[in-house]
Amino acid sequence: MVKKIRAAVVGYGNIGKYAIEALNAADDFEIAGVVRRSAGDKPAELAAYPVVDSIDKLDNVDVAILCSPTRAVKEVALQILAKGINTVDSFDVHSQIVDLKHSLDPVAKANGAVSVVAAGWDPGSDSIIRALMLAMAPKGITYTNFGPGMSMGHSVAAKSIKGVKDALSVTVPLGTGVHRRLVYVELESGADFDTVARTLKADDYFASDETHVKQVDCVDSLKDMGHGVHLTHKGVSGATQNQLFEYSMRINNPALTSQFLVSAARATMKIPVGAYTVIEVAPIHYLPGDTDKLIERLV
Amino acid sequence: MVKKIRAAVVGYGNIGKYAIEALNAADDFEIAGVVRRSAGDKPAELAAYPVVDSIDKLDNVDVAILCSPTRAVKEVALQILAKGINTVDSFDVHSQIVDLKHSLDPVAKANGAVSVVAAGWDPGSDSIIRALMLAMAPKGITYTNFGPGMSMGHSVAAKSIKGVKDALSVTVPLGTGVHRRLVYVELESGADFDTVARTLKADDYFASDETHVKQVDCVDSLKDMGHGVHLTHKGVSGATQNQLFEYSMRINNPALTSQFLVSAARATMKIPVGAYTVIEVAPIHYLPGDTDKLIERLV
Repeated sequence: MVKKIRAAVVGYGNIGKYAIEALNAADDFEIAGVVRRSAGDKPAELAAYPVVDSIDKLDNVDVAILCSPTRAVKEVALQILAKGINTVDSFDVHSQIVDLKHSLDPVAKANGAVSVVAAGWDPGSDSIIRALMLAMAPKGITYTNFGPGMSMGHSVAAKSIKGVKDALSVTVPLGTGVHRRLVYVELESGADFDTVARTLKADDYFASDETHVKQVDCVDSLKDMGHGVHLTHKGVSGATQNQLFEYSMRINNPALTSQFLVSAARATMKIPVGAYTVIEVAPIHYLPGDTDKLIERLV
Repeated sequence: MVKKIRAAVVGYGNIGKYAIEALNAADDFEIAGVVRRSAGDKPAELAAYPVVDSIDKLDNVDVAILCSPTRAVKEVALQILAKGINTVDSFDVHSQIVDLKHSLDPVAKANGAVSVVAAGWDPGSDSIIRALMLAMAPKGITYTNFGPGMSMGHSVAAKSIKGVKDALSVTVPLGTGVHRRLVYVELESGADFDTVARTLKADDYFASDETHVKQVDCVDSLKDMGHGVHLTHKGVSGATQNQLFEYSMRINNPALTSQFLVSAARATMKIPVGAYTVIEVAPIHYLPGDTDKLIERLV
């Protein structure tokens, strides 16, 4: 019997819930347990697993799937890598990924561990597509068009504005990497809609996009976690112009993020110690099973 | 100054010609020369390079880009790897790729060389897409729909039928991996069309597809090297159904093949000795330039 990979889920919001489902569906994994601050709060779907407030209380964890908010990822990853446990995360601030990798890399190496960072879908699987498109047509422009779908980051930003009780920011692709944002807000009693709308449109998250703010009675009734992307690359292979490439998907957002995290968790078991972004990992390492059989099936 | 990768182009048909263009467009490569049987035949675009009948006559070759027919790849690769020179090829018989890899691997390792096999577009870049789709939604069906475009392999098969002077086999995608083949044939004088059509439809290459044979006066006037693919995957991420992924491209066939060969040739300089398929190579290795800058741009 092949030894299963023992994974801990760290953080139990949306991503954590879907990570449990993805681990359950993967024959080569077993769930070591869930780490969350409120360890006493144990929903029915976790009945079979230890739920603890520290990863130290779980046995023989090979890899921790970090489902904490992006801003907590670096600190949590450093703590867990220092214990010699692999980590994967879906850190999503594109401009800080190189820094995250360089922060984690020496700690991973010093403790015989592996970390794959920013392993959601964008950054994440989309990044691999962008790299591949460039390998096929090195000259040219790639456009990443998001949506239509709910942007987690923009929704949180909108919700943090004074007077906003709840918010949903929907990203609408207008093509060539240009996006419209439709922001649905539910106001605190007494808040002034015009002031909220003006503040929101001036916020860094929204200032550079066409943004429409709409007041609604109940944001929750509008929420749908479906999302999508349409990536295009038109470029030059060698001296040949007009090579056209497109990639698109329509997906449940947290389900895909968590699935790719689990695939990346598998990859951590197969590569040398250190920290990596997803484009630095051979695609086959994300997959379970025998190498030759995967090649026969996929290549 | 960074040392450039010295590449030899082995074989000078369509793929070889486009490989020269792709190498010319890549700043990190220099062309060591072209190896072809008829070394005396030196077309104008090769004026600047040595054209020889043996790779031994070229200096300091790092990597050989094999542009020979698929059936010659194994023998040529074994000879060149035995000299400690890396190889890449666009071998395209899917069912024999594992065998090719296992044949080349020990020779590569014994001679400190690297080989990346089947590094065209299908097998090749499409294989990476299929692997990635499976990492995102492990359960489900992937369909690869080719065309519309000229199939090199089927055209050669049609041309080899008795009575056929020239042939063009166009692959038309009917969806869900089912294809129609339109075969345009120019007959030898005296050949009987009905006999040719019957023989062709019974050939292994065509027997399992809807095949239409048409007689034309001049096959050459119909030839266009544009091709395409449409890959779809509908599957399950974790426990979440109905995740939809699509990839498509419209490309000049030999231009893309040669470009991806050159990208794979670059990768041979960055990975440990041995033979690999394209899904066993980290995508970043196909690209030139600084790792952190590539991550900033692509991840």
